[in-house]
Amino acid sequence: MKLWQKDTAVAAEIEKFTVGRDAELDLELARFDVLGSLAHTRMLQSIGLLSEDELAVLQAELKNIYQSIEAGEFTIEPGVEDIHSQVELELTRRVGDAGKKIHSGRSRNDQVLVDLKLYFRHQLKEIVQEVQALFNVLQAQSEKYKHVLLPGYTHLQVAMPSSFGLWFGAYAESLVDDVQMLLAAYKITDKNPLGSAAGYGSSFPLDRQMTTDLLGFEALNYNVVYAQMGRGKTERTVATALAAVAATVARMSMDLCLYMSQNFGFITLPDQLTTGSSIMPHKKNPDVFELLRGKCNKLQALPTDISMLLINLPSGYHRDLQLLKENLFPAFQELKSCLQMMTYMAEQVQVRKDILQEEKYKYLFSVDAVNELVLQGVPFRDAYKAIGEKIEAGTFEAPAEATHTHEGSIGNLCNDKVAEQMQRLVQSFRFERVQQAYENLTAS
Amino acid sequence: MKLWQKDTAVAAEIEKFTVGRDAELDLELARFDVLGSLAHTRMLQSIGLLSEDELAVLQAELKNIYQSIEAGEFTIEPGVEDIHSQVELELTRRVGDAGKKIHSGRSRNDQVLVDLKLYFRHQLKEIVQEVQALFNVLQAQSEKYKHVLLPGYTHLQVAMPSSFGLWFGAYAESLVDDVQMLLAAYKITDKNPLGSAAGYGSSFPLDRQMTTDLLGFEALNYNVVYAQMGRGKTERTVATALAAVAATVARMSMDLCLYMSQNFGFITLPDQLTTGSSIMPHKKNPDVFELLRGKCNKLQALPTDISMLLINLPSGYHRDLQLLKENLFPAFQELKSCLQMMTYMAEQVQVRKDILQEEKYKYLFSVDAVNELVLQGVPFRDAYKAIGEKIEAGTFEAPAEATHTHEGSIGNLCNDKVAEQMQRLVQSFRFERVQQAYENLTAS
Amino acid sequence: MKLWQKDTAVAAEIEKFTVGRDAELDLELARFDVLGSLAHTRMLQSIGLLSEDELAVLQAELKNIYQSIEAGEFTIEPGVEDIHSQVELELTRRVGDAGKKIHSGRSRNDQVLVDLKLYFRHQLKEIVQEVQALFNVLQAQSEKYKHVLLPGYTHLQVAMPSSFGLWFGAYAESLVDDVQMLLAAYKITDKNPLGSAAGYGSSFPLDRQMTTDLLGFEALNYNVVYAQMGRGKTERTVATALAAVAATVARMSMDLCLYMSQNFGFITLPDQLTTGSSIMPHKKNPDVFELLRGKCNKLQALPTDISMLLINLPSGYHRDLQLLKENLFPAFQELKSCLQMMTYMAEQVQVRKDILQEEKYKYLFSVDAVNELVLQGVPFRDAYKAIGEKIEAGTFEAPAEATHTHEGSIGNLCNDKVAEQMQRLVQSFRFERVQQAYENLTAS
Amino acid sequence: MKLWQKDTAVAAEIEKFTVGRDAELDLELARFDVLGSLAHTRMLQSIGLLSEDELAVLQAELKNIYQSIEAGEFTIEPGVEDIHSQVELELTRRVGDAGKKIHSGRSRNDQVLVDLKLYFRHQLKEIVQEVQALFNVLQAQSEKYKHVLLPGYTHLQVAMPSSFGLWFGAYAESLVDDVQMLLAAYKITDKNPLGSAAGYGSSFPLDRQMTTDLLGFEALNYNVVYAQMGRGKTERTVATALAAVAATVARMSMDLCLYMSQNFGFITLPDQLTTGSSIMPHKKNPDVFELLRGKCNKLQALPTDISMLLINLPSGYHRDLQLLKENLFPAFQELKSCLQMMTYMAEQVQVRKDILQEEKYKYLFSVDAVNELVLQGVPFRDAYKAIGEKIEAGTFEAPAEATHTHEGSIGNLCNDKVAEQMQRLVQSFRFERVQQAYENLTAS
Repeated sequence: MKLWQKDTAVAAEIEKFTVGRDAELDLELARFDVLGSLAHTRMLQSIGLLSEDELAVLQAELKNIYQSIEAGEFTIEPGVEDIHSQVELELTRRVGDAGKKIHSGRSRNDQVLVDLKLYFRHQLKEIVQEVQALFNVLQAQSEKYKHVLLPGYTHLQVAMPSSFGLWFGAYAESLVDDVQMLLAAYKITDKNPLGSAAGYGSSFPLDRQMTTDLLGFEALNYNVVYAQMGRGKTERTVATALAAVAATVARMSMDLCLYMSQNFGFITLPDQLTTGSSIMPHKKNPDVFELLRGKCNKLQALPTDISMLLINLPSGYHRDLQLLKENLFPAFQELKSCLQMMTYMAEQVQVRKDILQEEKYKYLFSVDAVNELVLQGVPFRDAYKAIGEKIEAGTFEAPAEATHTHEGSIGNLCNDKVAEQMQRLVQSFRFERVQQAYENLTAS
Repeated sequence: MKLWQKDTAVAAEIEKFTVGRDAELDLELARFDVLGSLAHTRMLQSIGLLSEDELAVLQAELKNIYQSIEAGEFTIEPGVEDIHSQVELELTRRVGDAGKKIHSGRSRNDQVLVDLKLYFRHQLKEIVQEVQALFNVLQAQSEKYKHVLLPGYTHLQVAMPSSFGLWFGAYAESLVDDVQMLLAAYKITDKNPLGSAAGYGSSFPLDRQMTTDLLGFEALNYNVVYAQMGRGKTERTVATALAAVAATVARMSMDLCLYMSQNFGFITLPDQLTTGSSIMPHKKNPDVFELLRGKCNKLQALPTDISMLLINLPSGYHRDLQLLKENLFPAFQELKSCLQMMTYMAEQVQVRKDILQEEKYKYLFSVDAVNELVLQGVPFRDAYKAIGEKIEAGTFEAPAEATHTHEGSIGNLCNDKVAEQMQRLVQSFRFERVQQAYENLTAS
Repeated sequence: MKLWQKDTAVAAEIEKFTVGRDAELDLELARFDVLGSLAHTRMLQSIGLLSEDELAVLQAELKNIYQSIEAGEFTIEPGVEDIHSQVELELTRRVGDAGKKIHSGRSRNDQVLVDLKLYFRHQLKEIVQEVQALFNVLQAQSEKYKHVLLPGYTHLQVAMPSSFGLWFGAYAESLVDDVQMLLAAYKITDKNPLGSAAGYGSSFPLDRQMTTDLLGFEALNYNVVYAQMGRGKTERTVATALAAVAATVARMSMDLCLYMSQNFGFITLPDQLTTGSSIMPHKKNPDVFELLRGKCNKLQALPTDISMLLINLPSGYHRDLQLLKENLFPAFQELKSCLQMMTYMAEQVQVRKDILQEEKYKYLFSVDAVNELVLQGVPFRDAYKAIGEKIEAGTFEAPAEATHTHEGSIGNLCNDKVAEQMQRLVQSFRFERVQQAYENLTAS
Repeated sequence: MKLWQKDTAVAAEIEKFTVGRDAELDLELARFDVLGSLAHTRMLQSIGLLSEDELAVLQAELKNIYQSIEAGEFTIEPGVEDIHSQVELELTRRVGDAGKKIHSGRSRNDQVLVDLKLYFRHQLKEIVQEVQALFNVLQAQSEKYKHVLLPGYTHLQVAMPSSFGLWFGAYAESLVDDVQMLLAAYKITDKNPLGSAAGYGSSFPLDRQMTTDLLGFEALNYNVVYAQMGRGKTERTVATALAAVAATVARMSMDLCLYMSQNFGFITLPDQLTTGSSIMPHKKNPDVFELLRGKCNKLQALPTDISMLLINLPSGYHRDLQLLKENLFPAFQELKSCLQMMTYMAEQVQVRKDILQEEKYKYLFSVDAVNELVLQGVPFRDAYKAIGEKIEAGTFEAPAEATHTHEGSIGNLCNDKVAEQMQRLVQSFRFERVQQAYENLTAS
């Protein structure tokens, strides 16, 4: 059963090719499709396209369907094309003609647009929450190990003293900037496309501000042609923000893979978190970090994957856009599971405490030695030359451990300031507005 | 002359390979390098690493250099590696030993980081201004042509009535969301990395909040390891925002190329804005729109280009990062010139006013006809079927022109609401704070 | 049960995260894993690591397993990590200790490498066959419609006369060059990595030339470190070739979507191959071409997706590489289904025969008019100017239909020459060598 | 002066925007543009469009221009749009009306197409030669250091014994497969598009086989519509092959950066090939390898950059395609300089000979120990378990150095077999055919 079927038979193979994985992917949209319809029908009644009685039965049945979705009992029947058809089908079965009326002033185009926006908004919220969990663990580890020194590298060459406090804290701060990107994606998502119909609006006197408020959107996508352009653009923007988070997790994983190597030996993992080899009995491999790296590198390709679909498509809906679900929907789950796994692993990492004892790290303090001379009044360039000559001659002695005290340095991590930045950003999402709206919509 | 030269000769070919295009690209950083030094030296004096007298001569000479840059008289001498070396060289020539002292508590790593951040901040501001100019023209054209109808397409099939008012307005609104991305990139850029030295901080008691305030930054990149990670990450973030703007311009160009085709014939350009063919005397080609499309599609590849350099680099500086200048610096100029050209062309476009007279557009109003039946009480699905049968039988007559009145539709464009959104966003950049800071720094 | 399990419990969530979709994807490798083992065991016996009796029972059981795979009866049991473990498990169940011996001189690394190479070789063969099928249809359509003219466009502007003969034939010829890329990918794939063990070879005196011959490989990946580097590199190369084919199908789809638009109206499709709209009763949408375009554009992102995983990984195996299966395995099926669908649709396309009657195409013959003057002795540039002035003045008259006769032009398509190129290329794959080898290996 | 100028003034800013960097980039095409004209004019005479006398003067002058290009004395004058216009201008100046005739049967579209094909063919030849030079050095180093052992890694964990012989040899063999890709790109490039005019052929009776032979092409791009489609497709294919080479150089550079790190310490470089730090006097950085890595990673983004321009462009020329020059032309020079630099550096690398003495590498031989048990008759899985228990208990002793003897292993590198593969591939290009053709064309 397809809503647009024109009494001509569509060959089964064409159907399979065109429907693709929609039935499976659309299940994720079910909840949001019903929320959209709850708002749309209230608006239709307000402009006289539904009677109060019709509205009452429609609201009751939509809330029933909503309950069945929440309870995990909702499915898309074989032969039903997509989520919108399934919901409308159930509604029509239950309430007859009034069920047919809810498609007034709406096209599948704006219906799926609003579903996607609500779904992305929800996923972005869950991503933010997982990011916060990882952030908290990283900050805790930073504080816990703030006195454990680590060689700092430039060009992969031993350079200057660093610390686990700095290293863990750096990735925490990286997440703050990633949340800035999530916030931009959220704000672009958080605008209501409903009422744009097939991308050119409707001759019905729709009240789009009303559905905007009912669904907890911050604003409208005003222009209906632009609302339709949001399909694909929203996906690309969201993917960009996911990629930003993924880049942080991937880079941290690369560091951890190096640090696990016998050639660094900075950290270890409990045996049960490593894997072995089918031919080498001595191996303890950091597969989890490698998979975190690989999965998060793949996620960084997502914006390009999406752009490849969108480039040079003229304005107006094209069926190609349907395929974006296949790219983006699994990415949310993948990123959330990576964040959870990294949160878990970051807590399990065991750090080595005597790393700097090794001979090869003795030049770490050469800059501190230069600085000591400078503090005694020697111009920097001359001090640099003097220490350089000592090193060349093999007579360099590391100074007593230097105290780094400025903001953000080994001795003054400023984790609290960074935590404040994170907190302020997360509040800007105003997740509570959405929750309030949904409660109002679904209350019986 | 290279600051790190250790009295061993570096083969000339190696030098050419490693220095690359730095001398050329670094000129763009000159102004910002001096601003950074103006702030850094004031801070050094405040913590006792420069005397008041030394500060006075350094400030005076740095301001002189700043004037020469503003006047376009500054160059990087042959044999001088980069902008930082050139500025320090000139300073040392003029003020002797004090010149050597300004590198205290600073590495080339954080020096170039802060230069880049100031430069990106400046470029983003200029991009925002160009975006606003295009936005204003698009909104003006939208208002001017709000009564000129256009076929709306889905699947490239004639679908429903649209208008030039909607079409121009849609791209204006698209720019609002693009500015949201520019804002995120700006906020991530607008944090001070100075004081992170080679990425591990310094043993000097630097006052990083002081340089933050002097340079008009909103906040610090606190963690020094993260500050260094900002190299590459900032570039990728900024590129992402440029790509968002470019996507809007490219898509608009694709529409315009189609609309110029004889098969659409929706718009024309004055002859002098088209080009001809070397063998076909009748051709009037929309090369400018094609080049806008091509250049802006290239810009959309930029984030991937940058990611390709960054993927799997462990933390800590790597020389690879230097190459990012080659990707990103020309992109600013390219995008600005595309925005200027589109602003100019969008004003020149001549729209055809009788498009909908053509026979092939007669079904545009089929939905409006369905809606009329619905307003008479027919359930939507039944009305849809009835009109469908008329079309199939060739008896369909378009209704008198429908009035679309809801928010964002043909008859109610809401351009003013969209303009408010744009204005609010642009204010969030707080460009005036930066300007004030620079005036304070450079005042004599 | 995992081969490398070291009597320490691996937390279930870690297992789920690391195993990923291997059990599902590895089923595609089952047949090739057994072929690899059939060859490996024969080689082990030849160097004295298996007795003749052991070989006999192993061969018999491996052939039984091969039959069960061919019959679709083979599965990976819950709790079994991958295809290699499942095959070894079944073997050990059936033949005891000898089953344990087949892992001698082999690691999972080279085992999966050889499985992948055999699998890719098989998939590439199937792709080539599908490409040939499409090629044949395109050439047939080119011959069928060689007299039906079409406007040729440059800059999307009406330019010169073209024909459906040229248009269909062009995409056929495009596939020839795509097969050249498939051939390169095939040749890089068709080298034997078996014997490289974990990427560093083995202390057993393996006879790698023997397994090379048994498996029908053209050559060895000699260097064992390079053999391991083939993981990822082979995938990227194969993806590049798939992307080349996909680009041809995508571009052809874009043309078809335009040609279906009422604004071109060059082709139509039988109703049952179009889809309708949920709100617009008049719509007949070319969804199949849009999905072909979208799916094939997605496939063009595949090489980048893979590069994103590989960039900056040092030599030697990394677990990240396992994730490449998720990218590449479904791509084969996707491309094959796109090729089949395009083959079907290209046969169904109905072309309009009177296109050039429309007024807007009258300047198509302006170059032919210029050429007529040239043949009368007028220098080209002067002829060009003369015709240009006639067009400007509105006095241009199209000449009688021009005859284009040179190689590859409207009147002389050279489809036979192109068919010869295709045939020669396909023969270069020498698919029959592989088939012969497999028959020898699996004969009872 | 622009050939298509229609006596209407094109605003200067439009001209600057549209001409872009063509004048600069087109200089690289000059030589090939003249070669194309030398062939085209001979063909025009053969079909009666030029007299013998006209041909004689045109050939003489074209050869003069060719000489001036070879001598580096040719330039594109200010105000002249592109290389084709400049050559035609000079010709017309020298020989008058006959100069105007050479554009008969040709458009700028196929003229630039053939120029590009000749240019790419030339560049690919130079790349192949540089690849061979690097190949030879890598094989020489492999032989020189075949007895120097190295730890082999999987998962960045110490795994099994490797050698510098294997390591250098692996990258040599990698280049063989890369040349396979270069060959595919070359074969796709090596087909003649001349005669396709603006992409739809000509009403002149051109002899396209004649120009094919004169220019040393292996075959024709027969179908004229496909010939035009080659614009962009050829560039993408060539870029793909360059990216394959770049991936090998980049990965080798990543290994070298790690091996230079104090944490590996496997290789060193002469001081003059390292760089220092502006604040750390002890640093000796491998900048050259980092830049090789970065530049070659950038080159891997090139195919995507090009795809981004091409995706969803309908068939027929679009001005966007002009921009591909900016992507691809500098890439040839970049890759050649990277290959030269890596060839030089690979010769300079100093390898450490006692690496395996370090305690942390003692488990490298655990597999060899397992294999010893197997050779004594113990089933592999039991031997694996036994050695694993010794390692766990700390009682494992490495066996005397194992002898690896099979093809491609430490003791049997098979460099000669790999060299044969390379030689056979390079011969398949048949570069001598092109050289012979050019000599015939330019001989006076």
